[in-house]
Amino acid sequence: MSDNDLHWTSAITQIKPNEVRLRGYRIDELMGQVTFAQAIFLALVGHLPTPEVGRLLDAMLVASIDHGVTPPSTLAARTAASTGAPLNAALAVGILSINRHHGGAIEDALRIIQQVAARIETDAIPVSQAADDLVATYRTEGKRLPGLGHRLHTNDPRTIRLFALAEEAQLNGSGVKIIQALSDSLAQQTQRRLPVNVDGALAALLFDLGIAPELANAFFMMARLPGLVAHIHEEQTRERPVRPIHPTDHDYDGPENTSIGG
Amino acid sequence: MSDNDLHWTSAITQIKPNEVRLRGYRIDELMGQVTFAQAIFLALVGHLPTPEVGRLLDAMLVASIDHGVTPPSTLAARTAASTGAPLNAALAVGILSINRHHGGAIEDALRIIQQVAARIETDAIPVSQAADDLVATYRTEGKRLPGLGHRLHTNDPRTIRLFALAEEAQLNGSGVKIIQALSDSLAQQTQRRLPVNVDGALAALLFDLGIAPELANAFFMMARLPGLVAHIHEEQTRERPVRPIHPTDHDYDGPENTSIGG
Amino acid sequence: MSDNDLHWTSAITQIKPNEVRLRGYRIDELMGQVTFAQAIFLALVGHLPTPEVGRLLDAMLVASIDHGVTPPSTLAARTAASTGAPLNAALAVGILSINRHHGGAIEDALRIIQQVAARIETDAIPVSQAADDLVATYRTEGKRLPGLGHRLHTNDPRTIRLFALAEEAQLNGSGVKIIQALSDSLAQQTQRRLPVNVDGALAALLFDLGIAPELANAFFMMARLPGLVAHIHEEQTRERPVRPIHPTDHDYDGPENTSIGG
Amino acid sequence: MSDNDLHWTSAITQIKPNEVRLRGYRIDELMGQVTFAQAIFLALVGHLPTPEVGRLLDAMLVASIDHGVTPPSTLAARTAASTGAPLNAALAVGILSINRHHGGAIEDALRIIQQVAARIETDAIPVSQAADDLVATYRTEGKRLPGLGHRLHTNDPRTIRLFALAEEAQLNGSGVKIIQALSDSLAQQTQRRLPVNVDGALAALLFDLGIAPELANAFFMMARLPGLVAHIHEEQTRERPVRPIHPTDHDYDGPENTSIGG
Repeated sequence: MSDNDLHWTSAITQIKPNEVRLRGYRIDELMGQVTFAQAIFLALVGHLPTPEVGRLLDAMLVASIDHGVTPPSTLAARTAASTGAPLNAALAVGILSINRHHGGAIEDALRIIQQVAARIETDAIPVSQAADDLVATYRTEGKRLPGLGHRLHTNDPRTIRLFALAEEAQLNGSGVKIIQALSDSLAQQTQRRLPVNVDGALAALLFDLGIAPELANAFFMMARLPGLVAHIHEEQTRERPVRPIHPTDHDYDGPENTSIGG
Repeated sequence: MSDNDLHWTSAITQIKPNEVRLRGYRIDELMGQVTFAQAIFLALVGHLPTPEVGRLLDAMLVASIDHGVTPPSTLAARTAASTGAPLNAALAVGILSINRHHGGAIEDALRIIQQVAARIETDAIPVSQAADDLVATYRTEGKRLPGLGHRLHTNDPRTIRLFALAEEAQLNGSGVKIIQALSDSLAQQTQRRLPVNVDGALAALLFDLGIAPELANAFFMMARLPGLVAHIHEEQTRERPVRPIHPTDHDYDGPENTSIGG
Repeated sequence: MSDNDLHWTSAITQIKPNEVRLRGYRIDELMGQVTFAQAIFLALVGHLPTPEVGRLLDAMLVASIDHGVTPPSTLAARTAASTGAPLNAALAVGILSINRHHGGAIEDALRIIQQVAARIETDAIPVSQAADDLVATYRTEGKRLPGLGHRLHTNDPRTIRLFALAEEAQLNGSGVKIIQALSDSLAQQTQRRLPVNVDGALAALLFDLGIAPELANAFFMMARLPGLVAHIHEEQTRERPVRPIHPTDHDYDGPENTSIGG
Repeated sequence: MSDNDLHWTSAITQIKPNEVRLRGYRIDELMGQVTFAQAIFLALVGHLPTPEVGRLLDAMLVASIDHGVTPPSTLAARTAASTGAPLNAALAVGILSINRHHGGAIEDALRIIQQVAARIETDAIPVSQAADDLVATYRTEGKRLPGLGHRLHTNDPRTIRLFALAEEAQLNGSGVKIIQALSDSLAQQTQRRLPVNVDGALAALLFDLGIAPELANAFFMMARLPGLVAHIHEEQTRERPVRPIHPTDHDYDGPENTSIGG
């Protein structure tokens, strides 16, 4: 193979002496003018979001930043940390433990929202009918609907807040309507309501923001990374090495309840 | 071992039905009121930063979001991606390739800033003298000073911007003074100036914000994750599987130069 | 959840004070009496292989121990190693780079062998007809047949040797017949012979040994691990940190050609 | 940088059309004539071991193939597996959980054996005196001696067998003498005997075989990989996804006690 054949290109970042440009924008111009969440959108989607979308993205990332010590990604990362793993290795362990059965519901929910949206358009039917049909199909096939219901939260406060923020900014589009219609259809068909969980809410908003399903899990991983860092650091500074880590027998002993207002 | 011995506690997140609290704050209250960067600080340090610190943190994270296709973490992640790795596996590969010789300079620079700061305090000497001594020691031992100089950027635009933003917000403290003093001492002793690079600038600001050195690399990893996601996605959508990835023969073919003003 | 609900069992290894048993066998009895390859079979399949199967397994593992610096798993592991990654992190990088497009052909080939074997049984047709049909289907669908052909080796010496050893030990069963029939069918239908490559040969033998397809890639990973260790060690002892690693411009400079006879 | 500067060499494997050579040996010649353990030695050390060394290496690898569900690497790998991780990702998790506090004792023990051996040579003192001095130093510094004592096994059957096999083959050299002298010195100085554990035994034999300390942990990782594969496969075939995995409340339910003789 001639060496010329190996030439390749990338459309993400341009590096020149004393100049770094992300998707065409000077990075030193972005710094101080856009939030990290806005820059994430730019890196992934290729253009800057509006400030309203930026604020919603910040809220979406904050929503998933941590969910305590129960998730398997947290337990696996702490287990690795307890053996003396460097921070990046323990982080890799956490990220490798985000899969179909943990974290994967965002992508799954996004894909069913896409399916319903496609049917609405191709068959020119109302959202309620498209949702009814998909729920019926899932029930016939004995499959669980992703994005609905939660082991612990009957009315997930993160969903409520995300949908309120999206509505305020008039960013709630057909994605939000579809996931809510799916919850309604399920309640009607089963007499049991499973409210939209945070995965379903994130999926709906990612759909409305035009983010590709294969990036949905990336969104969750970027959001969860700081939580994993905090747990790894806590494990290595508070616990003895290679302790057996009980998956359910634990309590919170951090700062007392407080609020931004104080 | 009786099962009681396995009880443990964590001070990061408290989960109750319909209530998630990060370091004491309801996460649905944080959403929409703080940026992701501010929530990262809360997760890692344990209290909310001021809005000024929050803006600086956003800029610090944006500064490191991507540096093109040259860094080994990017090349390793793209190599894994080209074999058909799922996104989280390719991300883990990228994170596992951030080590002493790539990304590690932030922690190293933070540690020498700490050393110099400690000497200033214990020996009650001026910053210039403490910097001179440390540079002299490093030169005697034939060691490179971390945080100074760059293969490509003679005057790193990210450093300039970070220091300007810190000064505006009056957040530039002894960390910034020390890293600049180290660059000055080196210039004086060697007749060759190595300006503060982005690693050195981040280290100085992390010191001034009171972030522990062992979290410094975590900061870089959190910042770089979106860039890695973008590269993995690009590799899997634009390139053929298992292509040989040339480490230097590549060009940028993304959006043309633009600016926020338009 | 009551703690009793968390009780669980495993059928692999029993640990008592001064006694370790793998699948029922005292590990100190196994040591010195079975090879590592035989113990691998015991660990994965649950019973000891015959000595003949053991010898074949040793040969199968030796066959895949290394394939030079070209494979993406090797390049990714060396890239991580060059950043100063600890050995286990660089190994993890290598393993994470073994996926569908690299290493995955063993599992894929094993699955088509299973398909053909199932058709032979259910439809009571000869192997040649079942092979013809599968090849025709693959060609219609424009899919490549896994386990056949090699970028470099027109007649893979590892395949020749594996099939000879299997024949000697009378361990070549329907798996070997099927993969060869697939190569024959393809040659007949396209006038172009793609000989069975090492992935196809391993798949055929794993089928004949009754190893589950989902363990086929594990087999490759176990075999390749020592090669990855050797490359990581070489990178960290012979090369400078974070060098750009050219994917094709390299040569061999190791020991001269030799043979066991001397 | 001109492209010529990127040319590089490797001394491990030479690939030509229809010819694969490992450290100079045709791989198809090695297949069927050497065990996987012997080929591992060849890959790492660069020359073929004698058949006696080969048998000892097989026994050493078998010794560490699995240690049940208690080790953190096993628990972390099963946690990842329970989230639906692909096999290679769960394996990477297991390998990333082998660190200083788990698995690392082999390298640590090998390094103190090296220290003692160096003192015997430079100071021309008997092994007992060198061992006494090192034990005294460790006790003064409050450090634990690696390679001695076990949480569960008072007389590790794997150590007994490894030393017996080494003696039979006349491969027990100064490494074995030194680790035993360290156990003796400790018993004399503390009135409490901590017998050589399997990590200490492996370290002693790796020293006697001339394997570099930085490869000692690699040896453990290669040995443990099949055990990890078995646990990941068991988790994914016997347990429900994302179950809480109790670290101590588990039992063995595999094959009954048996022996090779039958």
